[in-house]
Formats: sequence, C-alpha cells, structure tokens
Amino acid sequence: VRIVTLLTDFGTADGFAGVMEGVIASRAPRARVIHLGHDVPPGDIRRAAFVLRGAAPWFPRGTVHVAVVDPGVGTARRAVAIRSGGSWFVGPDNGVLAWAATRPDLALALDRSSVRLRPVSRTFHGRDVFAPAAAALAVGQHSARVGTPVSPGGLVRPSWPAPRRAGRGWHAEIVTLDRFGNAVTSLPETAWRRSFGAARAVASVRGRRYPEAPAYGGAAPRARLSVWGSAGLLELSMRGGSAAARDRLRPGAPVRVIPQ
Amino acid sequence: VRIVTLLTDFGTADGFAGVMEGVIASRAPRARVIHLGHDVPPGDIRRAAFVLRGAAPWFPRGTVHVAVVDPGVGTARRAVAIRSGGSWFVGPDNGVLAWAATRPDLALALDRSSVRLRPVSRTFHGRDVFAPAAAALAVGQHSARVGTPVSPGGLVRPSWPAPRRAGRGWHAEIVTLDRFGNAVTSLPETAWRRSFGAARAVASVRGRRYPEAPAYGGAAPRARLSVWGSAGLLELSMRGGSAAARDRLRPGAPVRVIPQ
Amino acid sequence: VRIVTLLTDFGTADGFAGVMEGVIASRAPRARVIHLGHDVPPGDIRRAAFVLRGAAPWFPRGTVHVAVVDPGVGTARRAVAIRSGGSWFVGPDNGVLAWAATRPDLALALDRSSVRLRPVSRTFHGRDVFAPAAAALAVGQHSARVGTPVSPGGLVRPSWPAPRRAGRGWHAEIVTLDRFGNAVTSLPETAWRRSFGAARAVASVRGRRYPEAPAYGGAAPRARLSVWGSAGLLELSMRGGSAAARDRLRPGAPVRVIPQ
Repeated sequence: VRIVTLLTDFGTADGFAGVMEGVIASRAPRARVIHLGHDVPPGDIRRAAFVLRGAAPWFPRGTVHVAVVDPGVGTARRAVAIRSGGSWFVGPDNGVLAWAATRPDLALALDRSSVRLRPVSRTFHGRDVFAPAAAALAVGQHSARVGTPVSPGGLVRPSWPAPRRAGRGWHAEIVTLDRFGNAVTSLPETAWRRSFGAARAVASVRGRRYPEAPAYGGAAPRARLSVWGSAGLLELSMRGGSAAARDRLRPGAPVRVIPQ
Repeated sequence: VRIVTLLTDFGTADGFAGVMEGVIASRAPRARVIHLGHDVPPGDIRRAAFVLRGAAPWFPRGTVHVAVVDPGVGTARRAVAIRSGGSWFVGPDNGVLAWAATRPDLALALDRSSVRLRPVSRTFHGRDVFAPAAAALAVGQHSARVGTPVSPGGLVRPSWPAPRRAGRGWHAEIVTLDRFGNAVTSLPETAWRRSFGAARAVASVRGRRYPEAPAYGGAAPRARLSVWGSAGLLELSMRGGSAAARDRLRPGAPVRVIPQ
Repeated sequence: VRIVTLLTDFGTADGFAGVMEGVIASRAPRARVIHLGHDVPPGDIRRAAFVLRGAAPWFPRGTVHVAVVDPGVGTARRAVAIRSGGSWFVGPDNGVLAWAATRPDLALALDRSSVRLRPVSRTFHGRDVFAPAAAALAVGQHSARVGTPVSPGGLVRPSWPAPRRAGRGWHAEIVTLDRFGNAVTSLPETAWRRSFGAARAVASVRGRRYPEAPAYGGAAPRARLSVWGSAGLLELSMRGGSAAARDRLRPGAPVRVIPQ
C-alpha cells in the first residue's frame, strides 16, 4: 500500500483537505492518506517547507508527499512532482518541496490534461492538479504519463540559512516557529559538536540569553532556555510558555551561539 | 469499501470527532472514514451546508456524508438520513444537508432505537445517533431498518440566495467566508457567461470595487480582486491578505456585479 | 485490525501528529490510526486526561490509546504503557492516562532501546518512544519485549475532584472546558439521581445560576443553563454562546448544585 501525505495551509473549516482525500480515494482507492496537517499559516511557504523536511524522513520509501501552500495558484508558477530518495514530492514549484526533496533525480511538470481534473479551477489546484497527480503516482503510473520531465536544477529552491562559524562560536538565524512558540534555529547539533564537542551552548538574540538545557523541563518556570530539538537543530524556548510571543522572535532574526 | 465523511463544528480539542470515528469503526470496521473538517465556526449551519455542497461531488457514488452542526441537539428537531444522487446525507434536519442533498429521493427519520446507541445523550447525537446510522448505511443495512421514511418535501431547506439579473449586471450576495478571508458570492460563472460572455466582471460591496482577475496572484499586493473560485462562484479576495477582515465582509451582504 | 488512537497538544501546523502516524504506519502497517485530536491546549494534562476518559469507552477492546501532553519530555518522568480493561494506554507517566486507564492490571516502563527509535530526541518522544511502543503493541508483541513491568500502584494519578453531598445539594467543581465554552462539572447524573430522583438541578458559580434544561436549545437565547452532558456529568452552558468566556469559568472553580 502506498502512503500519500497531505500538508497544506487550507485549514479545517472549509473541507478542502477532505476533498483532496476524496479525489485520491476515488482514483487510488488502496492508497493510505496521512494528514501532516492543514494549519500552516496562510501562504507561509517556508514554514511548510520546514515541516515537510522534518516529516518526510519518517515515512517509508515510495511515499507520495503532497504539499500545497500556493499563493500563486492560477498564475504561471509550475506544478511539479519531484522524485528524491525514492519518494515523490508533489506541489507548486515555489520552494515548498525543496528542503525535503534534497536529492532530486527526476522532476515532472504536471501539465498532462489526462491527469488533471477537467476543468482545472483557477484557485484550487490541490483538488484539480496535485491530488490527481498524487493518485497517479500512488497507483504506479509511469512518470511519462504523469508529467513532462523538466530539469531538477531549474526548480525553485529557497536558500537554507547556513550557519557560519566565526570567532568563538556560530552565527545562525531563526528558521521558523512552532505551535508551542519555540523558535527553531539553523544551527545543527552535528555542526556544534564538531566545533565544541560536549560543551553546552548559550544562544543570544538581541541581547537575550537562552542557555542550553537538556530538555524543555530543565529550567525554572518561565526561564529562557535552548535545547537540541527533534529536527537536530537548536531551538529557543521558554519553560511553560511561548518564547516567540514573549521575546517577539521572528524567522530571519540573527542568533549568536557560543559555549557556556 | 464504503466511504463515510465527517463534517462538524466540534473542533479538535475534545475528542468528539475521534469518538464518532470510533463508533463507526466498531460497527462498520471496513468503512473508510474521511474527515472533511471539524472547525466549522460553532453553530454556523450555512457555512457547513456550503462546505458539504462543495465537497460531496468529489466523492464516489454511495458515500455516506455525515454533517453535524446541531445547536438544537436534544430538542424536537429531527435526525435524518437523506438519499440523493445515490449517496447518503446524515445529520440534523436543520438545513445543514440541504445544499448538498439536492435531489432527495428518500428521507429517513433516525428514530430506530435499534440503530441508536443506548442511552442517547442529550448533547452528543454525533456519537449516539448519527455515527451509528452512518455505520448502518455503510454496511448496507436496508433503509427500513435504519429509519422511518418521511417526506423529502418536508425537510428543512435554507434558501439559497439566487442572484438576480438587473440593469446592466447582476445582484448577488455573500454566501459565506473561507479560511483565507475570501468572500464567496452567490453568482455562478455559468450565469455570468450566459449574460456577458467572456467579459470580465467587477464586483462592488458598499462602494468598494473588486475587479475580476484570472487568479489570486493576478493583482498588486493587498489589492482587491474577484476571481471565479473552485465552487464555480465569484469570490471577493485581497491578494496576500483577508478581504473579509479588511473590508468587514459578512454573509448576506449585497454584491453588485457588472462588466468591466 | 488493531486501532491506535492519538491525542496530543501538538497542533496541526507542524506535522508532529502526522509523523507519529508515519512511524506507526512504518512499523505496524495494518493498524488503523484514529486521531482523537491534536488541539488540546498546550501542556493541559487535565484536559487531555478528561478527553481520553470520555473517548476510550467508545473504542473496541484491544485498542491502543496514545496520549502525549508532555511538558516534562526529556526529564526523568517515565514513559509508560498501561493495560486496563483489555486495552492499552501509552504516554508519559504524568497523569494524562490516569482517568481513562482506571483498572490497570499491567504497567510497563518504556525503557527498551529495541522498541524506541535511535537516537531518542530530547523533545519529541511522541515520535521516538510512544509511537514505536504503540506500534509494537498493535502488532501484538509480547509485553515483556515492549517494556519493564512496574507497579500500577506507583503511576501518577491526578485526583478526580469527587463531588460531596452536603446540606440540601451537592458541592462539585469545574473539571474542564470544551470547545463550545461549556464547563463540565464533576457531578455525575447517577449521583444526582440517587439523591434527588427526577428533580431538576440548578447549579451556581459565584452567585450565577444555571438552571437545568433538557438540552442546549431548551432555554432563551444567551440564557445560562445546565445540562446533563455526554460524559454523564452536569455541564454549565449558555445558549448560542460560550458560558466559559462570558462568566469567566475556570477549571477548579467550586460549583453548588441544588434541586430547583
């Protein structure tokens, strides 16, 4: 059984995600649909790209991942399916797939009218283009029937904010926030360990310090802390509250990390 | 395999929708449950009716659609199952099913104690009445065992705000809002094309103009626009933001649409 | 087919719940995953404990219920699986399972590295510890392979606020709120009936009266009322609005209930 995952910013008040599952169930009845979630903030391509990057590795090879955060729906932006690491990534070519589909060996423009629903609406390609393409891939249709090969090198790829080693620490930045108000930085634990071994880190943003703790609970209530999170990156947190809300942390903010 | 869809205003903090799936899984283990969503604004029957109208056509014939937005639960309002177009629509008889079940050829009052859970609570007929009825229909029980036939003509039916052709355009109104802050109007593209062919439309609400664009992205940032949406109706939008929030658009507001 | 239910405070913006389903689908492909919901308020262990208590009875014997509201993730709090009434309850040993797993006859500390993912992160035991344990139980692994038996008597158990019979009525308290702004009290209908038979109740909180109605709809618009809810407990409500918001009802607030 093939798994198809769905990640969107459609919310769960309007039925859009359910309709996508309906289209997939109609065309690939044996595929198993797993919802990664539909409450990505509207239009937040980077948040969705980050979520998909963190989620995709936990699914079996061959899974078809569909991500639709698509403010350009109906414009000239391409619809694509990307094969990477033996799995498929389906969505608009606006960067939402890029951080998960890191080793693309095949990319298809989803331009086949035989795969799309007819007519294709101007506003809901999740239903009309991406769900049918995912179903076609899930039932094992040959890629040549699903779309037209395009160069993987030409796909839109938002830059990942690579951290820089400088002075007695690292320069990184905030990549995204999560539901608990944790701010995920771009600094991987692996990079830190290479530079500083087992030393504990302390992160700073605009003069506020987040000393490394072994876990969220390893600090006084309401204290700032940082922790190596589940994505392998340093996260800025507050025990029992939202660091993002209290300290107005925003994606893109620079973070300095030095040993304690 | 029969599909059962669930649409409610129960939210996803209290487990209510999961319990409905549990009841269905217990009684119809082979049915596939698809969640259309549970974040309909509390008590908003028209929003749910509109969502179900837009979703149901994308599911296979024979699907059992359950919609529970039910402020009158426990009062004398009837619980019903309606057969329309070969599919079933299950929920309170308060209009939530009416815009989707447009050609009812059989309606059942869900009054059989053999189908309900016992005892039936006063507040959660989703669990005690509608889920068991959906399970009974999904396993193919004969309709006479599921409920008592009632006249389809007597079902509660909220009026659909039919647009009117007048002067050099159309009078329509806002039917509902969606999660992105788009305001869906009652004007179908088919009606517009009959009157004005390929001419572009411009909609007005309280003096504010929303010129037709080919897609959400086809306007300047923060500009007002209108677009023929995925339900086949004209929608009022703002690029990159919520038209409903900025312009205080509300269901029922009159909309004037004329050619550009 | 075994059912695995998931209940968390992870929200649906970050993909965490979907990843848990991915881990379960990888290790127990035939298990059916049912989402009880992921919008428990962050860190609200009592809310989740109450939701699980209300949901679990509606699932078949043998279901594996996973509940992760886990502010102490990564600290010394134990991870456990509890067998109760022929079903399994998996989560942190912080009380979240206690009100549902009421007759524990076996408890396992989830300390087997063979069952956990490797490495175990410090922040996401839903993915690394609880989902794999649930999968192991769902495929029928012997309990000795899933964890180390511990004393069920030593599990963390938040006190249920037992109501007290006093004077001409009952003293109870608010246990939790729901999405509609109803406040669920600790007074069971069964206890009331033993004391007062069919007499109608009237509840009071800080001098405000909530007279019993047969259903939410059985009162004037915006009127306060109480109703015997779907959990078998008295609930404080407002017709067509949120009693919790208007009257600032909070868990723990004392409630006096007397006959009308």
